[in-house]
Amino acid sequence: MDRVNSGMKGLDEILNGGLPKGRTILVVGSPGSGKTTFVMQFLASGAKAGEPGLYVSLDEKPERLKADLYSFGWDLDGLEQNGKLTFIDATQLRRPAHHIGQGSVEEGAVGLTIPELTLGSLVRTIKRVSAEEATQRVAVDPITSLMLRYPEEPKRRRALLMFFDALESTGCSCIVTSELRTSMLERRFQIEEYLSHGVVLLHTMVHDGNVIRAVQVEKMRGISHDAQLRPYQIGKSGIEVFPKDRVF
Amino acid sequence: MDRVNSGMKGLDEILNGGLPKGRTILVVGSPGSGKTTFVMQFLASGAKAGEPGLYVSLDEKPERLKADLYSFGWDLDGLEQNGKLTFIDATQLRRPAHHIGQGSVEEGAVGLTIPELTLGSLVRTIKRVSAEEATQRVAVDPITSLMLRYPEEPKRRRALLMFFDALESTGCSCIVTSELRTSMLERRFQIEEYLSHGVVLLHTMVHDGNVIRAVQVEKMRGISHDAQLRPYQIGKSGIEVFPKDRVF
Amino acid sequence: MDRVNSGMKGLDEILNGGLPKGRTILVVGSPGSGKTTFVMQFLASGAKAGEPGLYVSLDEKPERLKADLYSFGWDLDGLEQNGKLTFIDATQLRRPAHHIGQGSVEEGAVGLTIPELTLGSLVRTIKRVSAEEATQRVAVDPITSLMLRYPEEPKRRRALLMFFDALESTGCSCIVTSELRTSMLERRFQIEEYLSHGVVLLHTMVHDGNVIRAVQVEKMRGISHDAQLRPYQIGKSGIEVFPKDRVF
Amino acid sequence: MDRVNSGMKGLDEILNGGLPKGRTILVVGSPGSGKTTFVMQFLASGAKAGEPGLYVSLDEKPERLKADLYSFGWDLDGLEQNGKLTFIDATQLRRPAHHIGQGSVEEGAVGLTIPELTLGSLVRTIKRVSAEEATQRVAVDPITSLMLRYPEEPKRRRALLMFFDALESTGCSCIVTSELRTSMLERRFQIEEYLSHGVVLLHTMVHDGNVIRAVQVEKMRGISHDAQLRPYQIGKSGIEVFPKDRVF
Amino acid sequence: MDRVNSGMKGLDEILNGGLPKGRTILVVGSPGSGKTTFVMQFLASGAKAGEPGLYVSLDEKPERLKADLYSFGWDLDGLEQNGKLTFIDATQLRRPAHHIGQGSVEEGAVGLTIPELTLGSLVRTIKRVSAEEATQRVAVDPITSLMLRYPEEPKRRRALLMFFDALESTGCSCIVTSELRTSMLERRFQIEEYLSHGVVLLHTMVHDGNVIRAVQVEKMRGISHDAQLRPYQIGKSGIEVFPKDRVF
Amino acid sequence: MDRVNSGMKGLDEILNGGLPKGRTILVVGSPGSGKTTFVMQFLASGAKAGEPGLYVSLDEKPERLKADLYSFGWDLDGLEQNGKLTFIDATQLRRPAHHIGQGSVEEGAVGLTIPELTLGSLVRTIKRVSAEEATQRVAVDPITSLMLRYPEEPKRRRALLMFFDALESTGCSCIVTSELRTSMLERRFQIEEYLSHGVVLLHTMVHDGNVIRAVQVEKMRGISHDAQLRPYQIGKSGIEVFPKDRVF
Repeated sequence: MDRVNSGMKGLDEILNGGLPKGRTILVVGSPGSGKTTFVMQFLASGAKAGEPGLYVSLDEKPERLKADLYSFGWDLDGLEQNGKLTFIDATQLRRPAHHIGQGSVEEGAVGLTIPELTLGSLVRTIKRVSAEEATQRVAVDPITSLMLRYPEEPKRRRALLMFFDALESTGCSCIVTSELRTSMLERRFQIEEYLSHGVVLLHTMVHDGNVIRAVQVEKMRGISHDAQLRPYQIGKSGIEVFPKDRVF
Repeated sequence: MDRVNSGMKGLDEILNGGLPKGRTILVVGSPGSGKTTFVMQFLASGAKAGEPGLYVSLDEKPERLKADLYSFGWDLDGLEQNGKLTFIDATQLRRPAHHIGQGSVEEGAVGLTIPELTLGSLVRTIKRVSAEEATQRVAVDPITSLMLRYPEEPKRRRALLMFFDALESTGCSCIVTSELRTSMLERRFQIEEYLSHGVVLLHTMVHDGNVIRAVQVEKMRGISHDAQLRPYQIGKSGIEVFPKDRVF
Repeated sequence: MDRVNSGMKGLDEILNGGLPKGRTILVVGSPGSGKTTFVMQFLASGAKAGEPGLYVSLDEKPERLKADLYSFGWDLDGLEQNGKLTFIDATQLRRPAHHIGQGSVEEGAVGLTIPELTLGSLVRTIKRVSAEEATQRVAVDPITSLMLRYPEEPKRRRALLMFFDALESTGCSCIVTSELRTSMLERRFQIEEYLSHGVVLLHTMVHDGNVIRAVQVEKMRGISHDAQLRPYQIGKSGIEVFPKDRVF
Repeated sequence: MDRVNSGMKGLDEILNGGLPKGRTILVVGSPGSGKTTFVMQFLASGAKAGEPGLYVSLDEKPERLKADLYSFGWDLDGLEQNGKLTFIDATQLRRPAHHIGQGSVEEGAVGLTIPELTLGSLVRTIKRVSAEEATQRVAVDPITSLMLRYPEEPKRRRALLMFFDALESTGCSCIVTSELRTSMLERRFQIEEYLSHGVVLLHTMVHDGNVIRAVQVEKMRGISHDAQLRPYQIGKSGIEVFPKDRVF
Repeated sequence: MDRVNSGMKGLDEILNGGLPKGRTILVVGSPGSGKTTFVMQFLASGAKAGEPGLYVSLDEKPERLKADLYSFGWDLDGLEQNGKLTFIDATQLRRPAHHIGQGSVEEGAVGLTIPELTLGSLVRTIKRVSAEEATQRVAVDPITSLMLRYPEEPKRRRALLMFFDALESTGCSCIVTSELRTSMLERRFQIEEYLSHGVVLLHTMVHDGNVIRAVQVEKMRGISHDAQLRPYQIGKSGIEVFPKDRVF
Repeated sequence: MDRVNSGMKGLDEILNGGLPKGRTILVVGSPGSGKTTFVMQFLASGAKAGEPGLYVSLDEKPERLKADLYSFGWDLDGLEQNGKLTFIDATQLRRPAHHIGQGSVEEGAVGLTIPELTLGSLVRTIKRVSAEEATQRVAVDPITSLMLRYPEEPKRRRALLMFFDALESTGCSCIVTSELRTSMLERRFQIEEYLSHGVVLLHTMVHDGNVIRAVQVEKMRGISHDAQLRPYQIGKSGIEVFPKDRVF
């Protein structure tokens, strides 16, 4: 199976090569675990090596993200200007008339009418842009809000499968992020973990009063990998993984 | 990224500078953990340094809060008189006719008609007042009651994003407080934690029969920070954080 | 902030003075933890010192309570006769025709029609009696049944706030008791804990096969206090708190 | 407060006397913990001392119970014949036409029509019989099925209060049994525990692979008691409590 | 109380004799714990000693079960031919037209129409066959599917009581199996455990990485028994219980 | 009972022979535990030995799976060409008009119309193909999506029984995979575990910061087996089980 560098040397070591080329994998993590940093590092390192990347942002505006990640020194603006990095602001796929604070909102005890993104429009946009930009790497961050539209498990399952199918049809190497519901190592699995080609977990654990960050490749089809919890840090240049260390 | 002093030296050390300027962060804590003290200390220290602050109170009347926090010696009344601190009593956005104990209440087994605050009116008020007062710091304490109006997760997610957008549009450095649902370090994450730019957790833990207060910067986009649990105390002058100590 | 003696010397030590005068605090505890003993001791000690008290009983008839607490030697009947202690039997605010066992009850698989207390009538009664009796201390024990009338969290939140407002409007120092839902130190917080001015927890824990009673001041706005778990006992004269001891 | 012997010497020691006379207490336990043995021992010892007892059985037919408890040697049949013990078979308060296996049952996917006991009829029966038999001790075993008729907590609360009121109006010393929902020491409290005058818990715990039976007086209003977990056994003559021993 | 041999010597020792004759007890266990082996061993040993047995199978076809248990060497076919063992295939009480895979099934998103067994028809069948065959021992394995027809607890409670009554009316010694919902020793009790005359738990625990099988007599009315967890194994000839050993 | 080699020597040792011939067993595991690898190794080893196998894929397209498992060196394409291995793409049993991203999708807040597989059509297909190909081994991976169509437990129970019946009617040795809901050894059992002839659990546990893979034969009717947790690894040639080792 062909590989692509993740942009994190230690992770590539854990994977005995890198992420699977042309496949879609899932990165799951708790708040602050570094999901966005992870995927941006993936895209930025690919972009620097000449592989155009596409970042689809569902919750945060790209401008703000670029400012947030500025200190890592990846020069995201520069890569964007060179056409090596494209940002899709999926937070803006809204019906124009509905903005809170401007008077024309329907407010009532039952609920605010809030505009929504649809799976179909997102997929069409991703396919179009990745074709136009000859994209090789795609990140969708996070898919949680999309999946909330399908509260019943059978529909969510199928929506996820169709979404993963659509991403794979682009031929790009894709990473999709998802929110961990609970902080526990002993937890309830999320459907996405079963349906993904690969799953990387970003844990934040407390052990003996210490906060420990650990990455775990839970699953990576077709790739023989180290299954252990390995410590990682979010340092000055991004995420650094320590493939030879134990968590405690 | 520009910074603003939190008003807590130890916390600024953990953050390698201070809170992110112009951004909105979340402070989550259990009852008695010091959320209100935290945000008031943030506003008061800014106000003393010439940065006007705005405190939006959703559950407690400002007069009572000022009395409660009097012993810390921040002279909140003085700052208010000098226009350095403004209080919005959001507990009063009610329909005037409905007060319990005065006879005209609809009471029945199904429920009392209780007036409600709306997200839209709150946002408009915050924008207006912060413009009028040239506010630089804003605190909204707590957002829990607002979010309860959106019981379905997709709507709550979008309401939060729009609320955070609205706060950021003021250009102020904002802190929003939220209630921790359970006391456990091993817990279910709240949506706000994923959608915020930064999250500070105020834990109250019991270890070996000792009650221990610990602050943890769970997330702070764009800022390299210490991720560890650090002890803090609510002392005579406010919250004091011990960035070099371990919790146990 | 002015203080009033709690009637428990050890607790006043933990609070560096006593309970906040004119405020409403919450006492939460498991079955048998001593909630009723706590509030009655508070009222009795105040009454002995000339501060009239008002005890509002929602589940248990005052006559029975006085008999139950007789052995502590507080002479509740005597205090009542001197007008220093008043008892409101809120268990009797019922529609007269509905008593089980007397034939005129609607019984069916769907449910028995059981009369109910309303928040409004209770508040009006408390205000009236406290004014008439020049009350300085009030206890409402427990508020659980009142709050069950508001199963939806937003309404419950507002009902609690309005109830606390009403109690504070009397100008009295008030204690409200509430039932802990689970026995665990690691637990789900109750709304009342967030909305109260102060919270005292009465824990019953099992450690190494020993049953241990511990009091914890979880929160007390405006008062610098000891936050630790401290052992207490229900002895011959009432509750005794040991502020210098550790639980284990 | 006057006392009555429980029939278990060790328990009377824990209670510094015995159970409260004329009051209703609750015994809560897991399956096999000995709830029925407990209350029958209470009634039998009272009956032997000349205090007539009344046993109200809701799940099990009295004939079968007497056979089950035969080996303890309390001569329940003899006591019954002397009028010292009366059994109410509350399992028989059914509409006569509905018996499964005899053809006239409505069966369908939605549910079987099963006859039910009502709270009102049970209370009337208890009052009548206890008056006729000059009863001094009453046991109701278990109340669980009665309480299931009130799934909503406010109604259940009031039904329980009215039931306890009705039992206390008989003037007898009463014990009501209830089923523990979970086996854990760390558990969710049941409403009955808050509303009862006293609560005795019969735990079955597993510690280091050993099954340990422990009795705990969680609550006993008006009585100063030992609050610890104390071991007990179901021996040849009934329940034996060891008030001086520790569980492990 | 008269006894019958369980077919497991170690268990008879724990029970100080054997199972209660003419009563119905419950065996609860996790998957693979040996519930079916347990009841078949009970029936087979009785059948060998001349006590005819009746096995009612609700989930598995008798032919397949006999093949599954063949290796224990109980010669179930032989016993059946001699009329010492009868098998009721309760999996076949279905409406004939509904079989999946044969075309006449109603399939849709809402659900498949699946035929069901009714409690009444099962009881009539058991009574009839046990009378015809002069049965002395009965096993019903498992009752779970029957009880699922009564999702509401009050109805389920009564259905169980009526079912146990019906079994006891046959005069046979009966064992009913039930599925443990969770694997934990600290668990939520099932209604059947409270309503049965006796309960034997078959635990599969993991301790220090070892899988341990333990039998526990949780309850056995009228019989003084060992309450401890005792190890058991499923060996070549069936279940073997070690009444003198500790689990770890 | 006749046996078939599992393709994993260590597992055959645990089973004292191999899997039961002609029966259907269940393999349950967490994400990344190797369920698909397990069943494919079972089919591939059988195919190599001349026993034709049938793989029914419900979530992943066969082409992609073959690519994923390529590195194990089982030559799945070769076996397929020789007619020793057949793949059913059950992901394609969809109504043709419904594909997201192509315009004719009904999208709305309520939900996307997503086509579904039916149990009946799947069973008919399996029977037909296994007859045509003289199949001896069948794998269905995973059954989770099928079972989600029956949210009510009684219907799910019967659907599973009918599905297992249908598989057994083929006369093949079958393995069905299922998703573990939670990662805990202390967990809630799934219905399939009770209804299957045999259950193999693939655990991924964290112990002392180490990720440990363990296989456990929870149940295997008719076969005397080792019940312990045994470590396994996913190595270069597939799953390797270590029947003599302890997990820690």
